Amino acid sequence: MRYSKMFTKTRKEAPADSDSKNARFLAQAGFVQQLAAGVYSFLPLGLRTLRKIEAIVREEMDATGAQEITMPLLHPKALYDATGRWEKIDVLFKTEGSGSKEYALSSTAEEVITPLVQSFANSYKDFPVAVYQMRDKFRNEPRAKSGILRGREFLMKDLYSFHLTEEDFLAYYERMKEAYLNVYKRCGLDAIVAAASGGVFTEKHSHEFQVATEAGEDHIYIDRETGEAFNKEVIEEADHANEEKYEIKKAIEVGNIFPLECRFSHAFDFTVNSAEGKNIDVIMGCYGIGISRLMGSIVEVLADDDGMVWPKEVAPYHVHLVALGEDEMAQAESLYADLQDAGLEVLFDDRADASPGAKLKDADLIGCPVRILVSKKSLEAGGVEWKDRSSGESGIWDLGEAVERAAQMLVEENV
Amino acid sequence: MRYSKMFTKTRKEAPADSDSKNARFLAQAGFVQQLAAGVYSFLPLGLRTLRKIEAIVREEMDATGAQEITMPLLHPKALYDATGRWEKIDVLFKTEGSGSKEYALSSTAEEVITPLVQSFANSYKDFPVAVYQMRDKFRNEPRAKSGILRGREFLMKDLYSFHLTEEDFLAYYERMKEAYLNVYKRCGLDAIVAAASGGVFTEKHSHEFQVATEAGEDHIYIDRETGEAFNKEVIEEADHANEEKYEIKKAIEVGNIFPLECRFSHAFDFTVNSAEGKNIDVIMGCYGIGISRLMGSIVEVLADDDGMVWPKEVAPYHVHLVALGEDEMAQAESLYADLQDAGLEVLFDDRADASPGAKLKDADLIGCPVRILVSKKSLEAGGVEWKDRSSGESGIWDLGEAVERAAQMLVEENV
Repeated sequence: MRYSKMFTKTRKEAPADSDSKNARFLAQAGFVQQLAAGVYSFLPLGLRTLRKIEAIVREEMDATGAQEITMPLLHPKALYDATGRWEKIDVLFKTEGSGSKEYALSSTAEEVITPLVQSFANSYKDFPVAVYQMRDKFRNEPRAKSGILRGREFLMKDLYSFHLTEEDFLAYYERMKEAYLNVYKRCGLDAIVAAASGGVFTEKHSHEFQVATEAGEDHIYIDRETGEAFNKEVIEEADHANEEKYEIKKAIEVGNIFPLECRFSHAFDFTVNSAEGKNIDVIMGCYGIGISRLMGSIVEVLADDDGMVWPKEVAPYHVHLVALGEDEMAQAESLYADLQDAGLEVLFDDRADASPGAKLKDADLIGCPVRILVSKKSLEAGGVEWKDRSSGESGIWDLGEAVERAAQMLVEENV
Repeated sequence: MRYSKMFTKTRKEAPADSDSKNARFLAQAGFVQQLAAGVYSFLPLGLRTLRKIEAIVREEMDATGAQEITMPLLHPKALYDATGRWEKIDVLFKTEGSGSKEYALSSTAEEVITPLVQSFANSYKDFPVAVYQMRDKFRNEPRAKSGILRGREFLMKDLYSFHLTEEDFLAYYERMKEAYLNVYKRCGLDAIVAAASGGVFTEKHSHEFQVATEAGEDHIYIDRETGEAFNKEVIEEADHANEEKYEIKKAIEVGNIFPLECRFSHAFDFTVNSAEGKNIDVIMGCYGIGISRLMGSIVEVLADDDGMVWPKEVAPYHVHLVALGEDEMAQAESLYADLQDAGLEVLFDDRADASPGAKLKDADLIGCPVRILVSKKSLEAGGVEWKDRSSGESGIWDLGEAVERAAQMLVEENV
């Protein structure tokens, strides 16, 4: 992509009300734009990163045998009457259609997925079933904040699993922990699995995935002896607030998984007959990752003072190619073509009217893993200057080697 | 994909209230499920086809130089106060959030895209700009009907273009006609460009893309002399209802494009300075394709009595592989692996408990372009039996040739 053709621009100043790194940098770099508190547009650079996170999550979910669908965002009220959640979910947005039909805007989708799976899975042979979607969710948060970390409208992967035995449920639940940890690793984050309260659904623990960072709003408690992690709620419930026993870390929650037991299957009379004709309860689990929240978390954890630092799998482009000076533009043009031919995704800053300083600042702000600079100085030094955005290391590559080296660097780089 | 693992199933009976081919076949085959009138879930098979149509539209829009973004579905009321459309759009769903903030659910996005582009395009050098999204739209239709043809919630590509001269606008408008016709062609449809009223936006014509079919609800009027097409509204407005002059055809509308002139840029005081410091008005166009509606239209136009007939670019799978009998399963298993290795997308009916009749019926219903049958009879005849879903032609391929032949057939097939 030629930077000169992109309709968004970086901004010198962050929005006045930015309350977090992700709100500041994502807006300044033109990845997102706020429309209202907690409500964001995703612009070309931001949408590329969002889609890459989506693709990682999709791959990891598919690998567990789950099947992707999309469910509507308009949920008829009658479904919530069955579960008693119309009044209980305090963040539900509601709307009314013709014929006075009332709908909730999807905040999760248990009320839709349960009868949907029920309509197909009517024999014990049809189990287990795992189904997910990546769809907007709406939550009327009294206080939307922290950029795309806590939105009123956000993109979420929600997966629901259906089982006939506790063992089968638990095996899938453990498999999902693994899948979640793979997702975070590929996004450049080290996540910790912390036990959390099961809420209204179960007396068992649910689990949160937390990334330790000073920017976090949550606290996790790590047992100094066993290494087990708990969220604050569990610690308080268990009255375990023995601070010597636990190491306390600030953290951001980047996902959670819940045992739902039979809370929703009972609400919809979803049972099946066993081979012996016995009535079996359907056991459910649900598993969420806020895709846009995860994108914001990557910024919070990895950004430095100059801007964002994207791991290669989620960077909007692999290489940020910068040409300084008119004479160097032809060299850069041909390198741009060669890098793309080699399968690399390149953001090419071909602006004629931007200063060298502005171009380099923008490259740091946008945060692609590799910056390649074609300048008079670099050509005199024998080629192009490369810089690793994450480590800050830099050097000179021969012009003839640059494509191969860039490709190699992206393979090797471990974040 | 193994059919035995798919959580959806075909149904013998269509939903009782199916009022159209697409409502009937898509539900029966497990592509979609209705949640409420005009509100549908897209199940694994249906989502694959929807995503393929999306990908075609994306390619064709990108080829015009347009850039993809996503805009929020929650639109603050204040934006509609600026354009006067809060009351004027009679199909707006509205909702209220904390602090009594009112939002409309996106029915289109002029109110969001205009100030968004305005915030970046502040020099004449920044034009033209073309931006699009593929997002859910919500319309509180008093009478949702015809399956996914006219929904209350549906997937739409909406593109907006911004220009400084009428010539530049018109050139892009014509370029979009071409892009739209490419989309329909790749989806197996012959679309006709029909002049339509400009509505409240302009005294010029807008244009609709219509596919002639007996299942259509619209009528288009084709001038017998010039070949020009008009919709009913234009004919009535012009009092041209001379039926001898026009050939009248029933048709489905599968897209439309509108000159917006300065209707929205004026509402947001969006002007820019020319090189000479003169104030220039920004001229806009908007361009819509209902992605889910287009999927329904393909069914209406191409389905036969036995089920759906998907063109290869939008079929959920290229090949529907059917194994009959236990002994033939091993041959089919190895063919399944080989077809996939060759890059073909295969739906493999590996069910042990379905009758041959049910399997063949399901293959016709689902409508993948090529069916390959491995049966005792086909093996005795020297290989596998192939069938072209569209033409109905069939024959025998040697087992060793089947992969190559299937791949070749998909390349050659012209729909």
